[in-house]
This record gives sequence, C-alpha cells and structure tokens, in this order.
Amino acid sequence: MPDFAEPLERLIAEFKRLPGVGQKSAQRLAFHVMRTPRESALRLSQALLDVKDNLTLCSVCNNISSGELCNFCSDPRRNQKVICVVEDANNVIPIETTRSFNGLYHVLHGAISPLRGVGPEQLKIKSLLERLSDAGIEEIILATNPTVEGEATAAYLSRLIKPLGLKVTRIAMGIPVGSDLDFADEVTMLKSLENRREI
Amino acid sequence: MPDFAEPLERLIAEFKRLPGVGQKSAQRLAFHVMRTPRESALRLSQALLDVKDNLTLCSVCNNISSGELCNFCSDPRRNQKVICVVEDANNVIPIETTRSFNGLYHVLHGAISPLRGVGPEQLKIKSLLERLSDAGIEEIILATNPTVEGEATAAYLSRLIKPLGLKVTRIAMGIPVGSDLDFADEVTMLKSLENRREI
Repeated sequence: MPDFAEPLERLIAEFKRLPGVGQKSAQRLAFHVMRTPRESALRLSQALLDVKDNLTLCSVCNNISSGELCNFCSDPRRNQKVICVVEDANNVIPIETTRSFNGLYHVLHGAISPLRGVGPEQLKIKSLLERLSDAGIEEIILATNPTVEGEATAAYLSRLIKPLGLKVTRIAMGIPVGSDLDFADEVTMLKSLENRREI
Repeated sequence: MPDFAEPLERLIAEFKRLPGVGQKSAQRLAFHVMRTPRESALRLSQALLDVKDNLTLCSVCNNISSGELCNFCSDPRRNQKVICVVEDANNVIPIETTRSFNGLYHVLHGAISPLRGVGPEQLKIKSLLERLSDAGIEEIILATNPTVEGEATAAYLSRLIKPLGLKVTRIAMGIPVGSDLDFADEVTMLKSLENRREI
C-alpha cells in the first residue's frame, strides 16, 4: 500500500472497518473527506458520537430511542392492538417503508441460535410476554427473518404465545415481486406453493 | 422514510453525503455504528477531524502531507530525477501500487477544463515549473487522466516543458490487462493500435 500521511492512513483504516467498505472504497471516502469543508467532517464526526451517547433502547419495545419511549411506542396514532416482533432494530425499516403497518414493534435483539450459543433467555422475550399480559393486544406478527434461526425463534414464540389465546401470524415467504421463478431456490418455491392464495 | 430517533436519522443523513453511499447503505452503516462499542465510533470520529486538522499540502509537490514535506519528497531513497505529474492526490495510489515507480510526484489539483472554468492558472503549474529549473531533473511523466481535460492538461504541460530541453512522457493508453477487445471503445482501441510495440 502507498505511504500516505498518518492521519489519512488512519481514516482509511477506520472506514475499512465499516461493513461493505473495502480498501478502494475506504480510500475514496477518505479522499472525499479531504476535499470537503471541515464543517462536513465535523458534522459526521459529531453524528457518530451522538448516536453512541444520546440513544438508548425503548423501555417498552427495545427499539432504538432517544428517550424513555421510542417514536412508535409514544405515538398514540399507532394501533396498540398489534405487535410486530422483529429480530433487530433495522428490520423495522423495510416494514415501515411499506406504510401499511400501523401497529407497534417488539425488538428481540437477536434470534435463537444454538450454534452461536444464543438461547431464548438472551433475547428480549420476557418483556414481550409482559406486554402481552396487558388487555387489548389482539395480534402478534412474527416477522423474524426467514432463516433457520429466525424460523426457530418464530416457532418458539408461537408455542409460547398461542396458549395465551392470542392470534399469532407469521410473515409470508415466497417469490419476491419482480423476480423470476427461474431464480427461486427450491425452499422458497415450496413456501410459495404452500402459501398460495385463491384469487 | 421510517421515523428513527433524531441522532440516528442525522447519522444516516451524514453517511448519505459520502460518495457512493445511498439510503440503504447509510442505514446499514448507521446501524453498524449502533452495534459497535463507543471506542470504535470515537476512533472514526477522531480520524475524520484529524484529517482536516493535521494534514496540509507538501510545500514541494502539493501532495497531502502531515508536515512541510510529504512522505515522497522527504524520502532520500526516491529517484529525484523523475517527476510524475498527476491531477489529484488520490491518483498517486494506483501508481504507487504498481511498486515500479520510484520517482517524485507533482499534484496539479485539477485539470484544465474550460467548461468548468478551470484554466492553467488555477492549477499548481507555476510550482512545477519552478521545480524544473533545478538541475538534475531528467524526465517528466504526464500521468493526468486519459479524459478530454486530462489530455488537454498534458498537451498544455508538454508545450510548456519540452522547450526546457527535458524528456516529457505520457502514460500509455490501451486495452486494460485481463479485458477483452470486444469491450474496448473505439478511441481506446485506436490508442492501443497507435501505441503498439514490437515484440
């Protein structure tokens, strides 16, 4: 690697630690920072620390929050009767982007994975069950990922919640919209057939 | 867009200002920062500011430097007789990566572009000519980009330097190694034919 000045080398190294950023992208980003005004670098620099210093987890749903309650739990316009359970806080993004879900969330902060030594007790399941004891909850949507871990977690939660007499649903798995059957793996194709709906 | 906590929204917005980072990548990076320890965020945060505060331009070649002279100009093992002229400081990377060039650099900080209102006087050409008046310089390699602006700049510099009796060379243009003739545009193919060498 070329012999850059030390601060530049260090910035490149730090950028490289970010996911999806290789040597070339890191260099490109670092040289971009070199060219931008100091205020731009300061804003990014400050935003990085603010995220670490001023964010916490919502005391109800464990989502990322700047206060005691997150933006969802503190919004009275959200439907308080439906809780969508996700593995991680970033899983909320694709769901919110649809603009079709208006309920609340519950973030588990992981999925059951015996291989990685993650059991139910490491997940935010206890606080979920506490929420369910409140009257008024009508449906729990299990939106964990369609992976082995996510499926195991959904199955575990389903066994736990169904006896409480609540409606438990699982998000549909199938062929992505705009894709082609040729590209579907056999498990996805199978799920797509199993989940077929009358039209 | 979903309703994130303010510091998270701001970090996503700041990441989005970086080149090649869209909404999804910015979210991914921001959530990565959320998950990493505070020290990691602090290191990146600090590196961003250090680059702005502790770097300057080399007084000889205008390369990025942490002191009066850059790592190249201050290295006595570099060949002081050859100067490679590049448009921007990041253009030094691909050249250094070859490990075949051991001379010095001169960074113009741009290329002649009448369309963008960049004339020769905005580039670091005066300081280049001053360096050439030193005895001992034997060759000037013009390594500006093979674009209209880079070519114009190389032609301009060539007209300026050749009368001084110095050897002026231009980097070769041709088919990239590992590529296929089918993918070559006609100008590249033409250059490749023109620059052919006896084997």
